[in-house]
Amino acid sequence: MKRYLHIKRVPKLYFSNNEIPNVSIPTHELFTKTGFFTHPKPGLVNWLNIGLSSINKIKKIIHHRMKEIDGEEINLSLLSHSSLWEKTNRWSNNELFKLKDSNLQNYCLVATCEEEITQFVKENLKSYKNLPITYYQINEKFRDEKRPRSGLLRGREFIMKDAYSFDINEANAMQTYEKVIGAYYKIFQDLKIPFVKAEADTGDIGGSLSHEWHYLHKSAGEDTLFTCNNCNHSSNIEKTLSYPKSEEEHSQVDVKYFTTTDQNTLICAYWPNSRILNPQFIKEEIPDLDLSFDNQQEILNIFSNEDTLINKKIVRIMDSRLNSRSNFPDFPINFINRSLMTTLTDIPIVLANEGEVCFECEEGTLDKFKSIEVGHTFYLGDKYTKSLNCSIDLPNIGESNLVMGCYGIGVSRILAAIGEINRDSKGFNWPSIISPWDITIIDLNNGNEKFYELLNENFIDYRLDNRNGVGLGKKIKQSNLIGIPLTIIIGKNYPIIEIEIRGKRYSNSGHWQSLYQSKDFHWQIIKDTNQEKHLVHINGLVKVIKSLLKDM
Amino acid sequence: MKRYLHIKRVPKLYFSNNEIPNVSIPTHELFTKTGFFTHPKPGLVNWLNIGLSSINKIKKIIHHRMKEIDGEEINLSLLSHSSLWEKTNRWSNNELFKLKDSNLQNYCLVATCEEEITQFVKENLKSYKNLPITYYQINEKFRDEKRPRSGLLRGREFIMKDAYSFDINEANAMQTYEKVIGAYYKIFQDLKIPFVKAEADTGDIGGSLSHEWHYLHKSAGEDTLFTCNNCNHSSNIEKTLSYPKSEEEHSQVDVKYFTTTDQNTLICAYWPNSRILNPQFIKEEIPDLDLSFDNQQEILNIFSNEDTLINKKIVRIMDSRLNSRSNFPDFPINFINRSLMTTLTDIPIVLANEGEVCFECEEGTLDKFKSIEVGHTFYLGDKYTKSLNCSIDLPNIGESNLVMGCYGIGVSRILAAIGEINRDSKGFNWPSIISPWDITIIDLNNGNEKFYELLNENFIDYRLDNRNGVGLGKKIKQSNLIGIPLTIIIGKNYPIIEIEIRGKRYSNSGHWQSLYQSKDFHWQIIKDTNQEKHLVHINGLVKVIKSLLKDM
Repeated sequence: MKRYLHIKRVPKLYFSNNEIPNVSIPTHELFTKTGFFTHPKPGLVNWLNIGLSSINKIKKIIHHRMKEIDGEEINLSLLSHSSLWEKTNRWSNNELFKLKDSNLQNYCLVATCEEEITQFVKENLKSYKNLPITYYQINEKFRDEKRPRSGLLRGREFIMKDAYSFDINEANAMQTYEKVIGAYYKIFQDLKIPFVKAEADTGDIGGSLSHEWHYLHKSAGEDTLFTCNNCNHSSNIEKTLSYPKSEEEHSQVDVKYFTTTDQNTLICAYWPNSRILNPQFIKEEIPDLDLSFDNQQEILNIFSNEDTLINKKIVRIMDSRLNSRSNFPDFPINFINRSLMTTLTDIPIVLANEGEVCFECEEGTLDKFKSIEVGHTFYLGDKYTKSLNCSIDLPNIGESNLVMGCYGIGVSRILAAIGEINRDSKGFNWPSIISPWDITIIDLNNGNEKFYELLNENFIDYRLDNRNGVGLGKKIKQSNLIGIPLTIIIGKNYPIIEIEIRGKRYSNSGHWQSLYQSKDFHWQIIKDTNQEKHLVHINGLVKVIKSLLKDM
Repeated sequence: MKRYLHIKRVPKLYFSNNEIPNVSIPTHELFTKTGFFTHPKPGLVNWLNIGLSSINKIKKIIHHRMKEIDGEEINLSLLSHSSLWEKTNRWSNNELFKLKDSNLQNYCLVATCEEEITQFVKENLKSYKNLPITYYQINEKFRDEKRPRSGLLRGREFIMKDAYSFDINEANAMQTYEKVIGAYYKIFQDLKIPFVKAEADTGDIGGSLSHEWHYLHKSAGEDTLFTCNNCNHSSNIEKTLSYPKSEEEHSQVDVKYFTTTDQNTLICAYWPNSRILNPQFIKEEIPDLDLSFDNQQEILNIFSNEDTLINKKIVRIMDSRLNSRSNFPDFPINFINRSLMTTLTDIPIVLANEGEVCFECEEGTLDKFKSIEVGHTFYLGDKYTKSLNCSIDLPNIGESNLVMGCYGIGVSRILAAIGEINRDSKGFNWPSIISPWDITIIDLNNGNEKFYELLNENFIDYRLDNRNGVGLGKKIKQSNLIGIPLTIIIGKNYPIIEIEIRGKRYSNSGHWQSLYQSKDFHWQIIKDTNQEKHLVHINGLVKVIKSLLKDM
């Protein structure tokens, strides 16, 4: 398609009321006041031009990295029939938006697509030779959040990249999982903001292995992560096992009783009452632990009949922070045969505290961070392929359930999180790769078309702010507030053009400095603590812009 | 972003069962069998990689042309609260998918966004100086079609570009309307397939002026259009006024009674009973015609009391095909004063027939076509801004309702329509600008990476078909069936490469012929009635491909 002269201008309602919002307002308000999006109703989002520009750039990075690992883009219907969700026992989820069509059939607005993609593969895959397959889509998902909040973090609609992989067995599926993890590293590196990959709980989605991808942030973080200062292992608080710093004295010990799914073993978990038990940690030792019933007396009743006790076992689990000097509660049932009882000591079963010892390397100590989750990857095994009968005939093995992984990235969450993390006293501050645009141009000369043709030809991502009746200072301030990396002012010194640096430098490629050394056009740098300005002759402008943006 | 070596391959489930569907199956089946999309449920669409590639290309054209006329891309929420639709009297529409959230609030899945965009502009526009504004979005819309059919033409979800313009008055709004019409011409010209812009009825959306954009197709067409062979004026059958070919004799005349909204005038419409009355045509003469009640006796009763008749009027309208010799039915009420009665003759009030005389130029005769609607543009006036109180303070005028236009393009309909129109004995046949990809490569040498790097560097849009166990002939046949313009075969004559032409030539730029004249590499053309092949040295391949595709 032929390129053409089309001067790209700031949006029509760009600061239409000319009010500059106070920079200290909450981030979600800063987003709406600077025109990234509005909320037509709580939790719903109308994306405006500025926000959509950033979202489209995040999508572009993800498309690139997913295609690089042979991900195939698809787009599944937003409406999904109840029948599949009933088979996987997820129809009862009351965070699904549900509706009936005119024929009284039940549908939901999809929040995630394990059911639909598994059904699709089941119906269309004819040979194991077509595997592995990784499908991905980037589109809107919906969740009937009861108390939606403003902003993008707890809304009812969100833009998400979801991917689903299918393999013939666990070994291959783990290779695929690692490949996707590789793409995730690249995506988050492309975005320039430091991130943490943390071991995570699989939650509702299921499966046996999962990682969350987080941005650290002390105040806006909804999650808590621990990172070891020795081995760098990171994990969500719900997955962080730890040992105590040093021997601890605990006079107060709490106990909770559990049983196994076959109800043949009584588990007595002991922990310091100043701490919080995480029953999931007990599962690391007792995989068939039954967490479905909570009534302590009910559990004990199973083991109260001394006659049947002979066929049962008792396992006592002592948290690592306890020792023989701890003050244990009385044993709740009577029994004679001590050989029925096993005692496991030094098992971490409580949530970690900052400063405790890392379970992984047993050397480093744990640092605690608040964080915002922006991605989640799961190894699913056959959880969905089993319920939906998605299998394939394998040579020498026969009909076999496929093995899946699923991989999410919160596209709109990334925008929300980076917006939050990168705020400063001037407003937002975007890495150029996801900035709504790279350069705001303020053209006091009502410049010539040739100039904009030059920028268009060179794929420079600018917007011209040619509003009448708004002063230079205000225009610069507004561009800074939105977080645009560069502002260019074309004024009376033309052909010398002024570039004001707003963006952060994430790298030091040395590119622009070496260009500066070898320059054959006017280029002067003015720098003080508050500001960095470059005065550049029009002949060198495109080169200078491109080299400056390389580090931003 | 750095480009990289990533060999682009055909999708994993590309003809996975190796069955070549019969080319004569209905188009919607050809779409699903060749992997453009599937239907998880009737009317719903799972877009697969092949279909999505074409859709993304159609979107790209539309983005380009809408941005060229300063259209601002936005993306409104798919969920819209009932409150706005109640104000515009559209909530009762039973083709809206409706749902309740957990707080029992009513929402619909949007089928169109006049309400939401008007509300947005109302809340955010602060000054008339920001006008005109044209917003557009390309996304999925939903409609609870009672009896959804397979394919994309009568589904429950569809991909649509909808745009909305806001102006301060009708004169400006008409200029905007013309500007958007200009973009539509370019979009449809970009798509290469001949199209028709037809005057159309405004229907449910409302407003006073509208045009439909159609592709003509004799069998799949759902609409009927007339085009004048003299002045080229086109219009939907519901808007086509016509005069009879020559004087006609009609012994049988039908009559229907109407009244005006003030119930002061009785309208008696007369037409040949072999034809179909279109009451909308009477509105051209009697703008305040009341079409809301249909019961003939009820209407006559209003005029049956001779005492009050003195304050009433009677208008008789005779269709152009009638004359004084026609056999009119008896007049239904008694009245004395002949001066109460006006008679209008030679008014076209029936649906046109092929071969009748054009109402616009009164010279040409009308040709009749079946067609598929792919776009619709409306001048809305203040229909929505009035109900939703969307006004602005104008200098010397004061508070004034904004004046709107709205503009739709059926993105998925375009794919369906062109797929239908361009089918031939080999399968689909896409204009390169929307083909899933431009070139299928069959590489019998398991070629070197350098070759694919060359293609990537030159932005050549290829897919490599490197499936094992599928023969050359079948691969070519399948690529042709999907409708890919070129197939490249790399075989034993390498570095001579074979290009098979499948695509249609829509233009004759002379570009490739003049390249052929001045070639400095091997290039041989083999042509018979069935086929055109080019044998080209690898050194000239990129140039030849690009020049061949220019006309396709």
